[in-house]
Amino acid sequence: MDDSLPLSLRSQGYPASPIRKLIPYAKAAEAAGHKVFYLNIGEPNHDTPAAFFQPIHAYQTPHLPYEPSQGHPELLIAIQGYFQRLGYPLEKHHLQVTQGATDALLFSLFTIANSGDDILTFEPFYPNYLAFTAQLGLTLVGIPTTMENAYALPSLEEMETYLTPKTKAILISNPSNPTGRIYTEEELKRIVNFAKKHQLWIISDELYHTLTFAGKKATTLLAYQKVYPAIVVIDSVSKRYAACGARIGCLINTHTPFMECIFQLGQSRLGVSLLDQLGAAALYRLENPSLAHLPALYEARRDKVINFLSAYPWIHYVKPEATFYLMLSLPIHDSNHFCTWLIEHIHLDGERVLITPAENLYVTPGKGKNEVRLALVLEEEPLLRAMNILVYGLQQYMTLFEPLNPSRPVHE
Amino acid sequence: MDDSLPLSLRSQGYPASPIRKLIPYAKAAEAAGHKVFYLNIGEPNHDTPAAFFQPIHAYQTPHLPYEPSQGHPELLIAIQGYFQRLGYPLEKHHLQVTQGATDALLFSLFTIANSGDDILTFEPFYPNYLAFTAQLGLTLVGIPTTMENAYALPSLEEMETYLTPKTKAILISNPSNPTGRIYTEEELKRIVNFAKKHQLWIISDELYHTLTFAGKKATTLLAYQKVYPAIVVIDSVSKRYAACGARIGCLINTHTPFMECIFQLGQSRLGVSLLDQLGAAALYRLENPSLAHLPALYEARRDKVINFLSAYPWIHYVKPEATFYLMLSLPIHDSNHFCTWLIEHIHLDGERVLITPAENLYVTPGKGKNEVRLALVLEEEPLLRAMNILVYGLQQYMTLFEPLNPSRPVHE
Repeated sequence: MDDSLPLSLRSQGYPASPIRKLIPYAKAAEAAGHKVFYLNIGEPNHDTPAAFFQPIHAYQTPHLPYEPSQGHPELLIAIQGYFQRLGYPLEKHHLQVTQGATDALLFSLFTIANSGDDILTFEPFYPNYLAFTAQLGLTLVGIPTTMENAYALPSLEEMETYLTPKTKAILISNPSNPTGRIYTEEELKRIVNFAKKHQLWIISDELYHTLTFAGKKATTLLAYQKVYPAIVVIDSVSKRYAACGARIGCLINTHTPFMECIFQLGQSRLGVSLLDQLGAAALYRLENPSLAHLPALYEARRDKVINFLSAYPWIHYVKPEATFYLMLSLPIHDSNHFCTWLIEHIHLDGERVLITPAENLYVTPGKGKNEVRLALVLEEEPLLRAMNILVYGLQQYMTLFEPLNPSRPVHE
Repeated sequence: MDDSLPLSLRSQGYPASPIRKLIPYAKAAEAAGHKVFYLNIGEPNHDTPAAFFQPIHAYQTPHLPYEPSQGHPELLIAIQGYFQRLGYPLEKHHLQVTQGATDALLFSLFTIANSGDDILTFEPFYPNYLAFTAQLGLTLVGIPTTMENAYALPSLEEMETYLTPKTKAILISNPSNPTGRIYTEEELKRIVNFAKKHQLWIISDELYHTLTFAGKKATTLLAYQKVYPAIVVIDSVSKRYAACGARIGCLINTHTPFMECIFQLGQSRLGVSLLDQLGAAALYRLENPSLAHLPALYEARRDKVINFLSAYPWIHYVKPEATFYLMLSLPIHDSNHFCTWLIEHIHLDGERVLITPAENLYVTPGKGKNEVRLALVLEEEPLLRAMNILVYGLQQYMTLFEPLNPSRPVHE
């Protein structure tokens, strides 16, 4: 019977993480003595502020209880303080602490949509959106945005062509992972009007809110919750405070029936790590984050990388306005094949690079097959070495496999 | 539109936690200056071993990265070591670290069953089983066990009467939360034979494995994985090591296709708290746990409580063989009403008691309406004060509301 043990159909169709599925190749390369530059995963490489560790190192209570499932009272107050400083005072009962943004997204989607319903999102998207909707039996519907158009949002009329009677919500990330786009005020209004007109929820994943470049600022959709309460804003300490390993996030919404279900979901998960909540509270309390210099640092990296890549007219991109991601369009036919081949076969002086194939950042068939996502999470010098390996690998690849003719000769 | 914001049907039917839903009454009583004895929640009241805090206090790396999504390498090794000492060597690729037992249960159920499928469990059950199956669109089907029969399992033939074409798994807790029953070898074989005969998965929640009394031992279903690989064993540090606030659990299974889906689910959750994993590794490594005295301590508490309650012939129970739970059958018609009334209206010298109504520990309509669950997680002296409040409250309640005639005059 061993081979025929029955598994669920949904487990068979569950999407592999394009970000993580190639890690075994990287580990094999490391085991063989090579160095790997990990540009696959969006993990900031700067230090977590010392403030995070202080309450944890100071925790001397010999007991480690469950916390209130809504969140540790200190963390709830700290989150309120943070958003107050941004100009958005929040009521405590509009907040739920979650295990990372992951649970915030899962809780929101569960509360909004039934199995079989549709969730809209803009392509390319953060690939776990596909995983989370799959877990809940939802269909993720991609509304294309394109590199050629600098990832600008389509018109309201075009968005409407993706509606079905089962459409329940539109899920956005702003600034966008993976495109680095900051939506304009006009675009945000368009999304809100679209949602309002069709009674859709908006889930706004705002993990990169503060990581913006060149003086540009992102607008949080908290600004629109008063005119349209069907907006859920999601935050996390992972990126802003370089605290990915803490797994602390939160969601914010003002609609009581929605929050009542969220609180019940929180109760059935019992609660979130006590110590990480204490550390996260210290992060949210930072008035003048020691990380205020980070946007400029990531902007400088972006510029170095783009300056390097601009020498190769068959590599296309849009200069990101925010985040540490960079989407590249390459003269390749199959980014899964290319990224796997790259980590497996290409090294320069024993150094290799791992990047994310972009096919699974789209649901529209055929899209993303010539694209990859980079996370620029190394210091400038190793980052440029990684770019060198990437370009060298690409050149080798083009001699071995028929290249895709670059159709757009000019950088945005 | 505010009032008509559309939510999902599944959010409307989501079960409230019977363990936590009455906490606001307790908080209100505390705010009014009263003391509350919390017997609603299974949170051990002894100290977390100092070993947990050592690696966390010693963590000086200024960076807090994502860990490998399968689990921190140190924790995986520590879990292997723990089960090796129990006599069950595990391969690393048969293990997944999870956020508490919660994610272990959700991952397992997702991988085994599609939305609309049936999951069997024995009544009464841990109420979050109902929440987790609801999250995944599954129907939890209760196979009754009764206090009159000391919660013995029904025959294979009786179990078979609960099968449908949609039955995919049987979910057990052994020792049982809430009954304190340790399943006999014969009962475990019956479950395995039943599952084998009907190609069902078995999910064995073994959080109370070591908390057994009077020299009795529980058998882990790891003992049967070789003869029947469709067995998932779930463990956690919460109860054994009094580390509920760490939110660290794991699941164990040997069937490669099952584990492949589990690993993908783990990847899309990114990972579990780094610091808590380091602490949990120290706990699993404890060769001679400082908690070895705990079963005797909980056994003594159980005996004191039962000795106290035995004076009231209208209170029924079965002496638990394990865990710190105690199910009581009371002369009441509606345990939700009674437990709410008790915390709201009854105090002795400013002290109140919060307990869990048992109706939601059953899915069979009408069952559990005269039952409550206690978690004996106080020192003996306050525990007896809490019992005094409970009995006093019951006596008052019986004068105010028509009592249910006790049908079974003899204690087990």
